[in-house]
Formats: sequence, structure tokens, C-alpha cells
Amino acid sequence: MKIIIIGGVAAGAKAAAKSKRMLPDSSVDIYTQDTHVSYSTCGLPYYIEGVFEDWQKLIVRPKIEFEKSGINVHLEHKVTKINPEKKNIAVENLKTNETIEVEYDKLVIATGAAPVTRGFEELLKKKNVYTLRTLEDGVAIRNKMKTVQNITLIGGGYINIELMEAFVKNGKNVVLIEKSPFIMPILDEDISLLVQTYIMENSNGQVKILTEDAISEILGEEDVTGIITQKGIGYDTEMVVLSIGVRPVVDIARDAGIEIGVTGAIKVNSRMETNIKDIYACGDCAEKVHIISNTPVWIPLGSTANKEGRTAAMNLCGEHKDFEGVLGSSVTRYLGLNISKCGLTEKEARKLGYDTVSTVVTKKDKAGYMPEVENVTLKLIADMRSHRILGAQAIGCGDADKKIDSISVGLANNMEVKDLLDVDLTYAPPFSASVDILHSAARIIQSKLRN
Amino acid sequence: MKIIIIGGVAAGAKAAAKSKRMLPDSSVDIYTQDTHVSYSTCGLPYYIEGVFEDWQKLIVRPKIEFEKSGINVHLEHKVTKINPEKKNIAVENLKTNETIEVEYDKLVIATGAAPVTRGFEELLKKKNVYTLRTLEDGVAIRNKMKTVQNITLIGGGYINIELMEAFVKNGKNVVLIEKSPFIMPILDEDISLLVQTYIMENSNGQVKILTEDAISEILGEEDVTGIITQKGIGYDTEMVVLSIGVRPVVDIARDAGIEIGVTGAIKVNSRMETNIKDIYACGDCAEKVHIISNTPVWIPLGSTANKEGRTAAMNLCGEHKDFEGVLGSSVTRYLGLNISKCGLTEKEARKLGYDTVSTVVTKKDKAGYMPEVENVTLKLIADMRSHRILGAQAIGCGDADKKIDSISVGLANNMEVKDLLDVDLTYAPPFSASVDILHSAARIIQSKLRN
Repeated sequence: MKIIIIGGVAAGAKAAAKSKRMLPDSSVDIYTQDTHVSYSTCGLPYYIEGVFEDWQKLIVRPKIEFEKSGINVHLEHKVTKINPEKKNIAVENLKTNETIEVEYDKLVIATGAAPVTRGFEELLKKKNVYTLRTLEDGVAIRNKMKTVQNITLIGGGYINIELMEAFVKNGKNVVLIEKSPFIMPILDEDISLLVQTYIMENSNGQVKILTEDAISEILGEEDVTGIITQKGIGYDTEMVVLSIGVRPVVDIARDAGIEIGVTGAIKVNSRMETNIKDIYACGDCAEKVHIISNTPVWIPLGSTANKEGRTAAMNLCGEHKDFEGVLGSSVTRYLGLNISKCGLTEKEARKLGYDTVSTVVTKKDKAGYMPEVENVTLKLIADMRSHRILGAQAIGCGDADKKIDSISVGLANNMEVKDLLDVDLTYAPPFSASVDILHSAARIIQSKLRN
Repeated sequence: MKIIIIGGVAAGAKAAAKSKRMLPDSSVDIYTQDTHVSYSTCGLPYYIEGVFEDWQKLIVRPKIEFEKSGINVHLEHKVTKINPEKKNIAVENLKTNETIEVEYDKLVIATGAAPVTRGFEELLKKKNVYTLRTLEDGVAIRNKMKTVQNITLIGGGYINIELMEAFVKNGKNVVLIEKSPFIMPILDEDISLLVQTYIMENSNGQVKILTEDAISEILGEEDVTGIITQKGIGYDTEMVVLSIGVRPVVDIARDAGIEIGVTGAIKVNSRMETNIKDIYACGDCAEKVHIISNTPVWIPLGSTANKEGRTAAMNLCGEHKDFEGVLGSSVTRYLGLNISKCGLTEKEARKLGYDTVSTVVTKKDKAGYMPEVENVTLKLIADMRSHRILGAQAIGCGDADKKIDSISVGLANNMEVKDLLDVDLTYAPPFSASVDILHSAARIIQSKLRN
């Protein structure tokens, strides 16, 4: 059995390793354009910050380990075409420009996501403008950062918030430009505003956030030296990072007749099978199902990629394994503020037609007399008709992520508001409050459901 | 409407406050033998340690606040008799020794738990021997601790582990005597052994643990000055704390014909009603239902007391409210080691007849390259027949409590092993691992279920 994996960061690396473990006699080949395989993209902002010095720490499993277990890793090899009829792929060696055809019995597409750059082609021609996707991007951004003082971030999502933390901790001044009225569009606007307020109050004057604004004019020749925004704000800058979103990399899949879903990602079933026999897709290039709404979504996350890679491998090796879907559970931090969410936001839920009821509660996360006590603000969202909990967002210097993980497990098990009212959570003064914020929020929602 | 509450620490205080809020025109009276009302018993070890100086911080809601809201608090009043026929109680004023009869329409028994002392009557006559239940006990233990160097703890449960931390942090030497082969009998023996190993390796030589041993001889006249154990170990001591367990305080309830359950605590239904009309019981004196096994249990915890007090109040005020039961979720720590559990232990599950399957996994709780990474060891227990998860125990310097709270919410929602395999938990390098220990443990259990 010949198994070919296209892409080797999270989903691809996992699919390869699991396939080889399940079918030791099969041949497993990873083809990737990248110069490395199996590394933690999510860790790049912390490497850039200087939390650790050696970028090699980001490598989950080095190439040599794959090869020791009998997996062939072809770095700097670009798959240019999939021929489902012949069951082969065309691969270009990026170093020699040679193209060869390779046959497969089972093919896994794990081509991942790429930064959205549309509309910024001119900007990206400048030498000091970056996007963050690969290890090389991370190394380049870190090295450049060390030589500059004033940095511009375009886009107010996760990646740029994490980069902003890295830059501010390194003493840099940051201007963040976000075209919509709120940063972190993954959150509801009320919570997003709280995040923005925290950032402004805790960044030592190093941060400016320009919302509802965009670049109008770029100054400088080879390098960007200054920016003028549409609102007429002008300032000097020495470095720009563009992170306005990512898109699934699906070109070769589409060209091969593989069905693309409504989200623009590759359509797969719960076994990670595409519409073409023996071709699987997983990770950031694949569409997912949202467990709450049962609708197709595209939420590219490393944690999901890992599970999908494993699911694809198990199925292609002949075991039946379903991946039920995602909840959009995620977390990040900014200078001590933990920011976490799961399930649908209220705006997402309303767009889908749910009759939502929600509450925002702020509460101490531990006994008030313990020195480690911090606040958490929790937004809990439920469905007026079914009483099902739809999602939650938590921010605060306290254990926001702990609260969201608890709710995530509940969401995966169809939790209703009543199931959260008296749920038996661990309590001791250094860890929690005897009446947890989950109880408080559920009780408020419960009383709203009754009225 | 006349509402009387017997006891005012957690369940009683909550029942009183909630009743008055729901029925502002009713009279609400708390009778308690104690000198204080509404305080955090769970915080006493941290007060003793010196985490904070003022014991008044342990008071959740002072007497004056209850009185401001129209609740009468009768401190140092002992209820000596309940007359269900006459619907009154006999109350002795402990300062004047006067006894009066007081009528009620609704009665809430929240008499709590008391330290087990049976077999230690002689020891307790000594001046330097303590038990820990009330605020006064906490103040006395702290004051005494400051004057001594060598302390004996009898019993190896939660309270004494927390006191041991307090004493060791204060530079004291501690000998702990536990009659069974393992400390922390609330855990399975494999996990308990790991806790004991950690304690011995991290206590700077200040701790001795004597298991399968007991006091054979007490030296000293007014004070205990030394102890000889049954195994013939002799040593000097200046202070003893006895914490071999607690028992529900049910005497006046039993005398009044209120049914006592198989666990020795007051039998109640899901509305906290006893077998006698208009009499409720809640908190540590009341029996609970274990959500996993649907069997009666007695697990006295402050977090449960609070919910039961609220439930009793809502029902006696005319609203229908069920309390579904408990999972035995709990947490503590010892010098950096977090110790947490929920659901049934494997030994409990086997005793109940479950065909258990379990695994013990140790894993980093965050990305390995982050400086805040620590280990967690998780034991996950499932039922071979139903594939339902029965319980979990987690220990480690990492986020053990976070893992257990997630599982708790799952247990409350009938989670099976398959529901945990791919559950969407929040992932980012400073918070978690991309493959969480919950996933790892569930996958191992899943493969065991298949074989």
C-alpha cells in the first residue's frame, strides 16, 4: 500500500505517523513545499517574543525521526497536480525544478492555510513587510523586530494580538490597524471591547489601535517608512506584519475535481473522505462541521488538524473512525489577560436564526482571601427554544481557559442550561470559588428563560 | 411565614439568604451553636498557614449583613429538640442556659458535620490536642503552631494534608500517622502513592508519614509530650491535630423521627425534603445521591452545601427545584502539587460492581517549549459495559484541577469514552497541549474497550 501525504505541518505529519504505525508494511511519503516538517505554528509568536531562543524547539518531530520510522519526507517538493484517474500526483522538486509523477493507493491532502493577501500586493513588495505562516517567517520577523522600534500590524485577529504581546514585551511601539469597528472579530463585540480596553490600559503607552481604518498611502521605496490611513492619520513605521486572515489552500484539490464546500475549504465527510475515492483531506485545508449548529464551518486550528490527521489515517488504514466536528474552542493571551471562547458567539448564533439569551458575569476565580485570586468575565449564550447552551466567551487575568474547557466538554455533550446550574465542580480556596462563575451565569440565564 | 434554619455556616447561611430574598415578608431565623455565621471552613488551613493575617477575611457575609436584610441570627444557641407535631423547636441559649420554644412553618436542618473522635477520648483531654472545624479551632491551631516545632497529625485525609502544607511552610516538623496503608483514601491507591512520594521528596526532610500505624501510648500529663506507635516508633511532639474523618450531625433530627439514610446522614429527596413535611435538610448533615452510580453517598463539601441550601430555600418558598446530586469533585494542593478528582475511584466503582477499565497517563500540560509547562498525571476510569466514564483523578504541578473540572461537566452529562476522544478543547502554547491529556487517556481507554 502506497500512502502519500501532501503537507507535513500538523494534520499531514499526524496522518503520516499514524498511518505508518497502523500499517508498518505500507510506504508513506510526505511531500511538502516547506523546509521543515511537523512544527508548532502556534508557538511562533512566543519564539518571536523570546520566550525561548532556539526555534528548533518548535519542531514536534524532526525529519530524521520520521525517516527512522520508515516515512519518507520530501521537503521543498511542490505537488502541482493530482490525477485521480491514474491515481498519481505530479511533484516538482523546488531545488532542481524537476517534476516527477508518483503513484498512490491512498492520498491525504493536508495543504493547510495561507495568509490572505488580496488587496495588499503592492505592500507585500516592500522588503520590511511580513506575513506569519512558516518557521522561516517566524525567524525573519524575530530578526527584523530586533532592529526596529516602530511596528505596524494590519489586522486585529489572534495572530496580531499575539505578535503585539511579543513586540510590546520587547519594548516596541505598535500601531494596529483593523478595518472593522472591533478587534478580535472571533468574539462578540461586548467582549471584544473589554479586550481592547485592557490592551490600551496595560500596554505602557506602546500601543495604538486604529479601528474602522485602513491604509490609504504607503510611504517609502524599498522599505515602508510611513503610513497614512484613510482617516488621515500619518505615522512612521519600520516594519509591517499583515495578518488579515487566512484562507484554505485548495487549488490543486479543486483542479483535480475535488469538491469544495460553501466555506471555500475542501468538503469532507466525518471520515475525512473527499468526494473522490481514496482521497482524504484534513487540517486547515478541510471544511469542518460545527457541533452546535451542524453547519459547515471553516475554523482552522492546530488542535483540530491533529485530530483530523489521525482520523484520516485510521480510515485509510481500514478502521472506521468518525470525527464529529468542532466547537471553535480557542484561547490566547495578551499581557496577563486570558481570552478564550467555545461554541457560537451571540452574533453567529443570531445569524443562524437562534433566539439567543445571554449574560455577562464578572466574578473572582478563587476565594477572595487567596493572593492568587483574579477576575474572570464570562459571557454565556443559550437558545431560548431548546434551552441548550450555544457558546461562551471568557476573558480575564484569572482562569478563563479553565472555564471554557469545562463548557466545551458540556457543549460536546448537548448540555442544557439546567445541566450547568448545580454542576459539581472542584472547589478549594486556591483553585476556585465555592459558587463558580459557571453556576452564577447559568442561574441568570435560567431566570431569563423562565420570563 | 416563619422560616427557621438550624446552622449557619454554608448551607444554612445560603438557605436563609435565599429564603429571605424570595419571600421578603417571611421571618427568617438562624440558630447556631457557633460564635460566627457564614464563613469559609475550607479557608482555615490557609489562614493557619499565614496566607492572610486576619481571620475575619474568612467570613463570607457578616452577621450584621444578615440582620440588615431582615434575617435574625442567634449565635451560641443550641437547638436541643425538634417537635414536628407542634411544629416548634426547643432552643437553649448557651450563654444564659435558658431554653425557649420557637414555632416554625418551615424548618431547615443544616447542622453540618463534626470531627470523628471515637477512640480518642483520652487524647482529646490533653491541652495541646486539636480538631479543626470552626473558626475558633483555626485560630487556636494557628496560635499554638507558632509556639511549637514538632507536630503530630493523626489521619491522612484532605484536612491534614492541607494542615501539613501550612505547618511545613512555617518550618515545622510533622509526623503524620495514618492507620490504613495509604494516605488520602479518597484517591485510588496508585495515585495516593504518587502523592505520598511527592510529599516525601518535596518537604525538605520536615515530614514523616507512618502508614498502617496508630498511637499505642501517649506520653505527658496535661500536654502530650511524646507518642509511641503500635509499631514501636517513639518521638517527641508538642502539638497534635486529630482529623480522622467527619460524621454528619444528625442527633436532633433522628430524635425527632426524621429518617436517617444508609450513610448515616439525613435522608432527603431531590428537593431537600426529609420524610417529615415542612422539614428540609441540606449541607453536610444531609445524604446525597452520586450522579454516576445513582446510589446514596455522603460526601460533605462546601460547594455542595451551598447548592443544597439554595435548593432547600427555593422549594420551601414554593418554587420547584431539584438538586440532581454530586460527583465528588474535589481538589487540594500540597507544596505545588495539585490533587484533584471527580466521579468514582476505581476501587469505589469495583465495589459497586462495575467492570472497570482504567489508564494512568502522565503528560505535559502546556506546549513543551513554554516556561510555565508542568506535568499532570491523569487516571481515567470507564465502565467496560456501558463505555461510560466513571471518574478521574489528576495530580501534578500542572493544571490538574482544569482537567478534572472538564471531566466533571462531562460526567454530569453522561459522557462516554467516545465523547472525550476528539473533544474540542482550547489550545494555545501557554495554556495547553495540542493533544490534551484528556484525548490521550480517552484513546488508551478506547483501545482497551475494543480488545
